[in-house]
Amino acid sequence: MFGTKDHLRAEGGHLTIDGVDVVDLAEEFGTPLYVTSEARLRANARAYREAFPEALIYFAVKANGNLALLRILAEEGLGADVFSAGELSLVRMAGIPGEKVLFNGNSKRTEELKMALEAGVRISADSLDELLALAEVAKEMGEEAEVAFRVNPDVSAKTHPKIATGLKTSKFGIPWQDLVEVYERAMGLEGVKPVGLHCHIGSQILDTAPFVEAAARMMELAGRIVEVGGKIEMMDFGGGLGIPYTPETAAPTPSQLASGIKPVFEEGCRRLGISPRMILEPGRSIVADSTIFLTRVNVVKRAHVNFVGVDAGFNLLARPMLYDAYHHVVVANKADGRAEERYTVVGPICESGDVLAKDRNLPRIERGDLIAMLDAGAYGFSMASVYNGQPRCPEVLVGGGRAELIRRGEDQSVLLSGQVVPARLLK
Amino acid sequence: MFGTKDHLRAEGGHLTIDGVDVVDLAEEFGTPLYVTSEARLRANARAYREAFPEALIYFAVKANGNLALLRILAEEGLGADVFSAGELSLVRMAGIPGEKVLFNGNSKRTEELKMALEAGVRISADSLDELLALAEVAKEMGEEAEVAFRVNPDVSAKTHPKIATGLKTSKFGIPWQDLVEVYERAMGLEGVKPVGLHCHIGSQILDTAPFVEAAARMMELAGRIVEVGGKIEMMDFGGGLGIPYTPETAAPTPSQLASGIKPVFEEGCRRLGISPRMILEPGRSIVADSTIFLTRVNVVKRAHVNFVGVDAGFNLLARPMLYDAYHHVVVANKADGRAEERYTVVGPICESGDVLAKDRNLPRIERGDLIAMLDAGAYGFSMASVYNGQPRCPEVLVGGGRAELIRRGEDQSVLLSGQVVPARLLK
Ligand SMILES: Cc1ncc(COP(=O)(O)O)c(C=O)c1O
Ligand SMILES: Cc1ncc(COP(=O)(O)O)c(C=O)c1O
Repeated sequence: MFGTKDHLRAEGGHLTIDGVDVVDLAEEFGTPLYVTSEARLRANARAYREAFPEALIYFAVKANGNLALLRILAEEGLGADVFSAGELSLVRMAGIPGEKVLFNGNSKRTEELKMALEAGVRISADSLDELLALAEVAKEMGEEAEVAFRVNPDVSAKTHPKIATGLKTSKFGIPWQDLVEVYERAMGLEGVKPVGLHCHIGSQILDTAPFVEAAARMMELAGRIVEVGGKIEMMDFGGGLGIPYTPETAAPTPSQLASGIKPVFEEGCRRLGISPRMILEPGRSIVADSTIFLTRVNVVKRAHVNFVGVDAGFNLLARPMLYDAYHHVVVANKADGRAEERYTVVGPICESGDVLAKDRNLPRIERGDLIAMLDAGAYGFSMASVYNGQPRCPEVLVGGGRAELIRRGEDQSVLLSGQVVPARLLK
Repeated sequence: MFGTKDHLRAEGGHLTIDGVDVVDLAEEFGTPLYVTSEARLRANARAYREAFPEALIYFAVKANGNLALLRILAEEGLGADVFSAGELSLVRMAGIPGEKVLFNGNSKRTEELKMALEAGVRISADSLDELLALAEVAKEMGEEAEVAFRVNPDVSAKTHPKIATGLKTSKFGIPWQDLVEVYERAMGLEGVKPVGLHCHIGSQILDTAPFVEAAARMMELAGRIVEVGGKIEMMDFGGGLGIPYTPETAAPTPSQLASGIKPVFEEGCRRLGISPRMILEPGRSIVADSTIFLTRVNVVKRAHVNFVGVDAGFNLLARPMLYDAYHHVVVANKADGRAEERYTVVGPICESGDVLAKDRNLPRIERGDLIAMLDAGAYGFSMASVYNGQPRCPEVLVGGGRAELIRRGEDQSVLLSGQVVPARLLK
């Protein structure tokens, strides 16, 4: 019923996750609620480890910054791709060792460069300007920064334009044509040690061809660097593997990705006589399908279409509004009900764009029903805001047949946090 | 130099706000930083009070939930439109009396209906289903809910589709064709007292015509309600007045809006022999131009175009990414410099869509320069998130020639807030 998602089942009319009734979870923890299957998360991590036994798998923390989940991924041997000082502190607290972390980002603050150096993690430099700043900071600190270079390979990834990151028009990376020059510059620069190349061509990519194309370009660049006497200790091909959000979508597995890029990588290494470590940075394909998002029906309105108003909107799940993204909807308390009517599921936020799901054929819905949105583990909670004065919801982990709170929900007090009213306005 | 924004000036090469040097502010409070002119905020509120002396002006808190700002607007006599229990608590703490608050929203929780009743505020019902739920809750509590009805007038507002809220396809309101029937139903319902009509046709509207069209439809509906014996104590025409984000844009003033809708309202009231209170719910036009957003340049990259990487992105100012919105850019430490190069200003977030300003002709920019984005007071901080592990920035109020902190910036600890790691994952 739920495709490859064998952690989800319909039992006695209710949706269950690893055998736990989600209707009970909504009762116990309230709604809205994010619920993660530990088993599925571990299985996803293992699928990568098995497909790429010699590579390092760096989880992209931007997809999900929950500490319990990061801890599980650390146990599974994963490293991390971090994009800020904040993400760096999270992964270190989760127990991911500094040598398995790459500090990415296209616009890093000086303090972030310092923090990365202090934590002893490698840094991916996004531009010549950043390389020079890094060298300066490192020299001041008496350190030598191990630096990789984010390459803009100018490869089209056929995904939503907001998340296609490998086109020359994107803000990311050093244009591949300039790369060798920048690398050579780094080789002569005090305070930095160039160690390899990095790319990330986009997200939710459903075809292995663009990964293969990017890998070929990266190996070609590695060759030119070797020619000018540069060393290549790591080759990071980024994240971006898509997942099947709709029942009709087919997405490549990690092992299909491996069949595509490993030959290019291995053949290139052999030809150049180098033996860098391969790195991958999956986010979505590790965490998305491990997690469902539960939201309660407040109101059903029969207007131009049948609107189902629920208690969460783009404040808590922004993907549908941002990227017209599809999340499969299940009426969790009518999980084996037949589709009877067509509904549009909308949130409580003040904008017309606050639509979670459009035109879905579902069992008849009433106030109080429980809606589950599937595949919500990636770029779900991590993009949440308190817009419209809506506090953020709790997160729960299901493992070993029981459910545990892994993030407490906020209450209204969060809206006051940090606020200071000058005395003259208190009179 | 800054159009009608006479709180902004270039002095000695630096941008100033009400005479305070913003380069100094960035030094003192750090970047990114939101800075609000108290004088401008008060002037905007007064422009509405003067244009509509008999009306109630309900500030739309979703645009900006800062308590100091709300306190100032309370001092100026404004009420509030709130969209959640959280926003209701904010405006009450700011000292806005309950009788000047309307509780709006298309999908309210039962607890929110209860809280609104306890706080003694009027509620705008968005659907028949909600009306029935409200009546039930009120009866249980032994209360009578004063209720207005959000009408979907099916009026096109020619704005960004995500914020056009008055079309029949939008999720908001009761289709105008069904309104009288719902109103009559309410008249016979225990626990509720219908008191009037409410609409809001969209945001950033630069023409008074759609407001006039909506007002006419609303008065027509009021007539039909009077015919069936209904009472109309309030007519709320919503918010939505646009502001001139680009130097070339002309936006109607509150007094031009008044010239458009007051005759329709007054003539209608006379004809029907009713004397409801007129209500308006401006958000953006009260607060947007009072506030600038400061962000520091981390990096300049000459690639496909000249990218300026700053220390804030759509995590703190989402409008450019969400609505392709334009915010005017000033290089604050080179405020009277001549435009020399064309730049695209980008944030530190991991998506290609994280672009704050595209193709702007600006003075030559280097690492360390300070960028000011104008008109950032509405839907700026209120939509902020901690995506990519970026804590939210402070807010400062400039009033009486000095600057005061009105919201402390967050630090990385905010990413840990509420997180719980189950013991079995700590081993
Ligand atoms: C540099 C980098 N690596 C990895 C990822 C993860 O991508 P995905 O979640 O699609 O696997 C991202 C996502 O934005 C990224 O920017
Ligand atoms: C019901 C309602 N009233 C008022 C407003 C304020 O609109 P604006 O900021 O465009 O004036 C909004 C904005 O979403 C709204 O939804």
